[in-house]
Amino acid sequence: MSTFGFLEYEDASPQVKAVYDDIRAARKTDYINNFWKAIAHDPVLLKRTWEDLKATMAPGALDTLTKELIYIAVSVTNNCQYCIYSHTASAFGKGMTPEMFQELQQVIGMANETNKLVTGYQVAVDARFQPPLSAQK
Amino acid sequence: MSTFGFLEYEDASPQVKAVYDDIRAARKTDYINNFWKAIAHDPVLLKRTWEDLKATMAPGALDTLTKELIYIAVSVTNNCQYCIYSHTASAFGKGMTPEMFQELQQVIGMANETNKLVTGYQVAVDARFQPPLSAQK
Amino acid sequence: MSTFGFLEYEDASPQVKAVYDDIRAARKTDYINNFWKAIAHDPVLLKRTWEDLKATMAPGALDTLTKELIYIAVSVTNNCQYCIYSHTASAFGKGMTPEMFQELQQVIGMANETNKLVTGYQVAVDARFQPPLSAQK
Amino acid sequence: MSTFGFLEYEDASPQVKAVYDDIRAARKTDYINNFWKAIAHDPVLLKRTWEDLKATMAPGALDTLTKELIYIAVSVTNNCQYCIYSHTASAFGKGMTPEMFQELQQVIGMANETNKLVTGYQVAVDARFQPPLSAQK
Amino acid sequence: MSTFGFLEYEDASPQVKAVYDDIRAARKTDYINNFWKAIAHDPVLLKRTWEDLKATMAPGALDTLTKELIYIAVSVTNNCQYCIYSHTASAFGKGMTPEMFQELQQVIGMANETNKLVTGYQVAVDARFQPPLSAQK
Amino acid sequence: MSTFGFLEYEDASPQVKAVYDDIRAARKTDYINNFWKAIAHDPVLLKRTWEDLKATMAPGALDTLTKELIYIAVSVTNNCQYCIYSHTASAFGKGMTPEMFQELQQVIGMANETNKLVTGYQVAVDARFQPPLSAQK
Repeated sequence: MSTFGFLEYEDASPQVKAVYDDIRAARKTDYINNFWKAIAHDPVLLKRTWEDLKATMAPGALDTLTKELIYIAVSVTNNCQYCIYSHTASAFGKGMTPEMFQELQQVIGMANETNKLVTGYQVAVDARFQPPLSAQK
Repeated sequence: MSTFGFLEYEDASPQVKAVYDDIRAARKTDYINNFWKAIAHDPVLLKRTWEDLKATMAPGALDTLTKELIYIAVSVTNNCQYCIYSHTASAFGKGMTPEMFQELQQVIGMANETNKLVTGYQVAVDARFQPPLSAQK
Repeated sequence: MSTFGFLEYEDASPQVKAVYDDIRAARKTDYINNFWKAIAHDPVLLKRTWEDLKATMAPGALDTLTKELIYIAVSVTNNCQYCIYSHTASAFGKGMTPEMFQELQQVIGMANETNKLVTGYQVAVDARFQPPLSAQK
Repeated sequence: MSTFGFLEYEDASPQVKAVYDDIRAARKTDYINNFWKAIAHDPVLLKRTWEDLKATMAPGALDTLTKELIYIAVSVTNNCQYCIYSHTASAFGKGMTPEMFQELQQVIGMANETNKLVTGYQVAVDARFQPPLSAQK
Repeated sequence: MSTFGFLEYEDASPQVKAVYDDIRAARKTDYINNFWKAIAHDPVLLKRTWEDLKATMAPGALDTLTKELIYIAVSVTNNCQYCIYSHTASAFGKGMTPEMFQELQQVIGMANETNKLVTGYQVAVDARFQPPLSAQK
Repeated sequence: MSTFGFLEYEDASPQVKAVYDDIRAARKTDYINNFWKAIAHDPVLLKRTWEDLKATMAPGALDTLTKELIYIAVSVTNNCQYCIYSHTASAFGKGMTPEMFQELQQVIGMANETNKLVTGYQVAVDARFQPPLSAQK
């Protein structure tokens, strides 16, 4: 279910098929998940989103699993059920252990709590935390 | 600046001083940042929050820097300026490089975008992503 | 399903019936959607919300469809499923084309992404963007 | 002010200068606003974000001003001050009148209110609003 | 500072003056706070918002102070600085003690934390919590 | 349904059973709701969250029902369905009347609306609302 329904491979234009093929190759599976089939009705968005996501989630200064954890942290904070479900499954597939999942949730919970304590107590930023930061020079 | 002002060490009760001492020892610095001095007017909250945070952010299945990155991801998504400023400074102090910071922001941005595309396109969760997940067994 | 169940027309007080009648007249349909039947247990809220909504969504400096698009943008950002579903249906009914829907989602996604990049990079506001703005004088 | 400071044109690499030149050309002004100078420390992000934004905000099925209004609606809901300030200024520059601004804020306020009434009253979605929607076929 | 600047009493139309007068009478002070002077450029919004707010915050089944605490809880969760500042001041003026403020912040922090634990652990709703609820009959 | 499934009493370790026993004793019911059974796979989180919640929600300067109302206000604003469902049921069990529920939702809706009007109109904080506040001294 999605606004325009799911666009299956066999019904797709060559432009969409090319993206589906690249998803399949990159993920080493024939399965195309619902998100891509939902936005494929907008081929420009499909192509751009897939290419941006592929580049963003590739290993770099941060490894792929760390990026998945960050993705989950955002999705839980935003309360995006689809994203939590799909990226939690994906993270387990990439080596997240139950212990890692548990610590991830602990940090997400704690960060959400202290974010609000800071806000509710109207705490001004310490001068030493003001950007630009010398540490990164 | 904060609702009740900042409670300085010399004005604090023995109970609060004990927490401040522990913060100083754990962080190897005399500096107590504004957040703790703002909530110290509630000694029970101060003690509980510090102890929970210390335990939550300690290295475990996830290392300390990864936990800081997750913390920043939550804080940016929640738009908590104090938290972003203090934990970004903290992460640089714990070894985050500019490249890591940049990839972190890329993932946060991308996750926030796709969270909303999923939501706007009303995408139903794939059956295979439904919990409970076999991967973690 | 809703906290108090749905208050149907035949079970409603004259005060609630009058609002239902006005909704039907304004929308040229006998159908009263679940939202109104859920809040009708509070007739004061029902009446005020309907009258405010009717006035707010009426054509003015902005046309009705543009207002629906803005409503959807808020609802997607807030992740309010009911609101997304009902206003997406409503917008299609008022002339939104698939192309308009697609561009709407593109802008919502992009705005959510850049909102977070701005926040994560701790960007100070340019002096020229500070209100009050000369443009509106 | 921003995490890494602002990267000025004269200090930028040819790759960054090319993006700055394109921003200037597209906007018909020499002024580069802080957002771009803050993220320019990550040239890949700079280039991708600018190109995506330029394409997304271009006139299409929706005109440019309508897209700005949607952008503001997201930014207000996310409470992103920089984004509100810069896009409000931009929208006035593109022809938003005070009356349009006022109606925009009315809709944003109303949508945020009813989003929460729906949520608090736990209202189930009407069957007729369930996607996929026939209207867009 | 606000988009259109602050509309002072002496510069206001009779329609706006009437609302200002009612605010002054209801609050037993000549002071009109910035919010009202910012939105007064839209007299219809000013009047409607003031009347709705006055009715909503009046003592009823819930007393005025409890309503202020709820208002603060929403504002902290939304990270609306102006709202937190003004309603915290207002709540102290209506009898909130430091102990009440502290417990309020504890509950807000805890609720934000457990909201995210529930979400991250993908917890399905217990059948007995499903509306409609028998308790309110 | 939850990430790791629900940990039932008979399958639990002594450490988890001790928390379950305390929940049952404190709530005077054998029923353990899904949230606890979902997070029980992390016994440290289970114990800490239960103890913090029990202490936070206990009557103090604010009574238990007021704390439930605040909890609901946060949960509605965060759009956390599980939390809304469980705490609404809990609040009715603790004496919330339909009239109190209705006024609660009115305040939540109004606060969310005015939060956004303040933000959209870019309203600066009045000097007199700036912390630290004299009222609490």
